Amino acid sequence: MSETGTADPSPHHLPTVLKHPQSRSVQLLLESRLPARMAWVDGDGRPQVAPMWFEWHGDSLLISTFTGSRKLDDLVDGAHLAVTIDTSDFPYRSVKMWGPISVEPSEGLTDSYRRASRRVLGDVAGETWCDALASQDQVLLRLRPVRASESDMSSMPFMTAPTGDS
Amino acid sequence: MSETGTADPSPHHLPTVLKHPQSRSVQLLLESRLPARMAWVDGDGRPQVAPMWFEWHGDSLLISTFTGSRKLDDLVDGAHLAVTIDTSDFPYRSVKMWGPISVEPSEGLTDSYRRASRRVLGDVAGETWCDALASQDQVLLRLRPVRASESDMSSMPFMTAPTGDS
Repeated sequence: MSETGTADPSPHHLPTVLKHPQSRSVQLLLESRLPARMAWVDGDGRPQVAPMWFEWHGDSLLISTFTGSRKLDDLVDGAHLAVTIDTSDFPYRSVKMWGPISVEPSEGLTDSYRRASRRVLGDVAGETWCDALASQDQVLLRLRPVRASESDMSSMPFMTAPTGDS
Repeated sequence: MSETGTADPSPHHLPTVLKHPQSRSVQLLLESRLPARMAWVDGDGRPQVAPMWFEWHGDSLLISTFTGSRKLDDLVDGAHLAVTIDTSDFPYRSVKMWGPISVEPSEGLTDSYRRASRRVLGDVAGETWCDALASQDQVLLRLRPVRASESDMSSMPFMTAPTGDS
């Protein structure tokens, strides 16, 4: 799986659904304004879940959180995430991914968070949002997926067959 | 916490945000067509997450899944869930809940799933959807939340203060 020819220091077997060429559905989800719903396991072995802004970058899902967040008690180097990026309206489309994270502290907001906020809110509101938070430090969670799946209900028989309703 | 006066066989301390009177935001989320994003911990201690139809009923969140689903390897009586029901568009509103489940097998589809499908898809498409699945058995997951939280960004300063943009 060295098709990229780059000098990646930690070669990574990207799951097929996230490799180029991605399906159009996966492309749209990774570029969408949807929040990623991120699940992890806390120190008591219990599930946790939160909606988070994200940025897909190369072979990684980048998620920023604020220094001091209780999440960071659990989200340490090597911790595992499960993430779903899925539409709220039927017919549903989703991409899910699983893998370990690395945790990278940042002085101030991460560049990834600034880009995500502009993508989600638009340039003006995204800048305003970040300006209001600029004094805060963040931590970048870098998820390198080891497994991924996609689903697209728009191509299922329910959507394409006549329903028989009058 | 016996304010209902009912003969509930297993008295349950419902978290404040889920008790009546609920906030309008929580009411709307629990009656919405949004999928609940459900997180759990698998047999390897790793996080899992999936969007699921749901029904809020009394003091429980009801989620149906199909017999034979791999989820059911993990989702046994007493397993814990974390669930977020949150809007995909800014300003975000969310209700989250955590707690153990009971697992109740059903012959055919659960009544709760039929109601949820009609709520989400509308009466006609919901019936058609269920008719196509009627030969399948389901399992009802009953989550009795022991903790819950809500968030409503529509009332935060960013939304109410002038931004200063020209």
